[in-house]
Amino acid sequence: MFELINKVKEINPLVIHYTNEVTINDCANITLALGASPLMSYSNEEVEEVVSIASSVVINIGTMNSSRLDLFVKAGKAANKFNKPVILDPVGVFATKTRTDFTNKLLNEIKFDVVKGNVAEIKFIGGLDVRGQGVDSFDDGEDISEVIKKIAKKIGCIVVATGKIDFISDGNTVIKIFNGTSKLKSVTGTGCMTGSLIGSYLGAYNNLEGRERDNFKKVEAVAMGVLTMAVSGELADKDNISIGTFKEELMNNVYEMNIDKLKEYGRIE
Amino acid sequence: MFELINKVKEINPLVIHYTNEVTINDCANITLALGASPLMSYSNEEVEEVVSIASSVVINIGTMNSSRLDLFVKAGKAANKFNKPVILDPVGVFATKTRTDFTNKLLNEIKFDVVKGNVAEIKFIGGLDVRGQGVDSFDDGEDISEVIKKIAKKIGCIVVATGKIDFISDGNTVIKIFNGTSKLKSVTGTGCMTGSLIGSYLGAYNNLEGRERDNFKKVEAVAMGVLTMAVSGELADKDNISIGTFKEELMNNVYEMNIDKLKEYGRIE
Amino acid sequence: MFELINKVKEINPLVIHYTNEVTINDCANITLALGASPLMSYSNEEVEEVVSIASSVVINIGTMNSSRLDLFVKAGKAANKFNKPVILDPVGVFATKTRTDFTNKLLNEIKFDVVKGNVAEIKFIGGLDVRGQGVDSFDDGEDISEVIKKIAKKIGCIVVATGKIDFISDGNTVIKIFNGTSKLKSVTGTGCMTGSLIGSYLGAYNNLEGRERDNFKKVEAVAMGVLTMAVSGELADKDNISIGTFKEELMNNVYEMNIDKLKEYGRIE
Repeated sequence: MFELINKVKEINPLVIHYTNEVTINDCANITLALGASPLMSYSNEEVEEVVSIASSVVINIGTMNSSRLDLFVKAGKAANKFNKPVILDPVGVFATKTRTDFTNKLLNEIKFDVVKGNVAEIKFIGGLDVRGQGVDSFDDGEDISEVIKKIAKKIGCIVVATGKIDFISDGNTVIKIFNGTSKLKSVTGTGCMTGSLIGSYLGAYNNLEGRERDNFKKVEAVAMGVLTMAVSGELADKDNISIGTFKEELMNNVYEMNIDKLKEYGRIE
Repeated sequence: MFELINKVKEINPLVIHYTNEVTINDCANITLALGASPLMSYSNEEVEEVVSIASSVVINIGTMNSSRLDLFVKAGKAANKFNKPVILDPVGVFATKTRTDFTNKLLNEIKFDVVKGNVAEIKFIGGLDVRGQGVDSFDDGEDISEVIKKIAKKIGCIVVATGKIDFISDGNTVIKIFNGTSKLKSVTGTGCMTGSLIGSYLGAYNNLEGRERDNFKKVEAVAMGVLTMAVSGELADKDNISIGTFKEELMNNVYEMNIDKLKEYGRIE
Repeated sequence: MFELINKVKEINPLVIHYTNEVTINDCANITLALGASPLMSYSNEEVEEVVSIASSVVINIGTMNSSRLDLFVKAGKAANKFNKPVILDPVGVFATKTRTDFTNKLLNEIKFDVVKGNVAEIKFIGGLDVRGQGVDSFDDGEDISEVIKKIAKKIGCIVVATGKIDFISDGNTVIKIFNGTSKLKSVTGTGCMTGSLIGSYLGAYNNLEGRERDNFKKVEAVAMGVLTMAVSGELADKDNISIGTFKEELMNNVYEMNIDKLKEYGRIE
């Protein structure tokens, strides 16, 4: 599945983002760093046009901007209409009833290919009790393989839960990623950026010709997005590095990521 | 009062930002760097929900986004309703009548705990003549202790005026901070980020239990936000450093700030 | 014409941006790095006030935010009313009919001083066939001097087309800039930031007294913005530098740019 990183660079998929204002610049830059093309739009008028030319669509509710809720629904529906892979990042879904209701609306009206959140967000969507504060979550590193498999079956799409261990499941198999560093929680938007990476891989995967696509599973394309962030973060976190430099090194490592590094450093089950 | 930096890291206060789109990412990152949790929301629907779980609320009018003026008023009122400390940053209040009028509206309808601006913004709010250009201000480093004390009394809250010397007053005492570097004016948003730091300290202060809180004064919590920025900027400004690297080092220094450094480098009166 | 960089630092022009949310922070920081003052506003209420005090106005349609299209038109008209130089960056004009139509509307209702895009965007505006993906463009480095001269005549303003070679034309002369690095395409917003630099130079140029202004041509002021970005990018791109560090070095190099460096490294025809 590591081969997929070269496919991103060859295919240069166009990843449309409907996202929050906090991390929008970092999401654009990490998409470029991996070798894909970002397009950010806040236009109601061009939704169908941009989605129709997209390789994938990322929807991220981070700031819950009142004037964009309808746009996000419209974008998701357009993705379904044009058969484009669409990823949901339900940031802070447990934090307010407003976020919970809007996430449910999105899940009801749109068929997502991936729902990606931190462990608390995904558990909450699965109907479990969570402890969180604002949009951050507590995570004790427990193995939630069975839980996430059930949630993936229930929602009917691939589910990603990031944390000390990252879990990716399509309802049948579970991929666990043990890479990472706690510093990823001290930079805003590393979760959002993971969504951009997933969008990039999934966009490339979707553009593969039938026979070539059979070499990979869709769940692997999704896992590659998570793995690229986790390994890049781990490699960026050197002795005594401080957080501003870590953020720069994270971007550096995504830009320089390749098959050899993924093979050498990736810890997957 | 330096102890308060450890309280931020222990308590991990949730700082809700209603802020501008220019510096929103930096504000989130500096809040995380200090050890607090940022939440940025542009949602009318969830105002009461997010403010009710907040430790503090920061309102920053930087881009004067037409579609958010009502939201900012609503957020301030919610902060008063739920007894949450609320900070106003009236960016460029002297630049346009629109900004002046909106700032007056906010000051009339909301009881702020802190009003923070640069020297020119604060003087203007106090009814004095100022020279400014756009949202930037001229500052000759004069001692405005008496002026700021009067303004704090007039508005009835703690007032912060940043510049060559930073002044913090609750109407009775004035704290002066002599740290800093002129490079802080060459990075956009260092003023906004100071607001985030004040919000973090004030959120932690407000969450202290009664007896522990008596060890500190509220005006000290506010001063700690200003001091953390000023000392971090000073330490970041090394020989021949250029501005991109300075911004990274500023974030590094906030992340690594501690009691010992504040004691060693802080120059306060 | 290299003298103009000192004029920017002396005059400190106020550059008002009506721009996208993706690169707004970088645009503010690069404006400061060059020695000008940025002001970003999303307020319908203060358009005339801020434009009347501006040295120049930059309009960038990057995210095509539905709620700001009217604001952008209003801002352009105010610039014409108050005789302020106004620059258009029609990001991705070829990507959707929505962008094409809106760009045409702007070009019809506003008299721009500069239209700046990448080679594909400018060719498209000139009525030529282009291949592009999203807001990115293909560019084979061909000499489009004659094409751009015609487009400048047709639109009736200075036209900038950035790419492997950058072209600047007022319809009579064409300035070609051979500096740069392919890494500028791997950082989001280097095009937008070039718009900010052009705004800074043009704002300074416009504020020069009659006799001093006669020492320079307007098209040179525009070229200086493009040249500053191209040379800064070239100097930032050292052996084995990765993309996060490159972005920081780009900002460093703009901050440290001066006449001597422009003379030594600038390759212009």
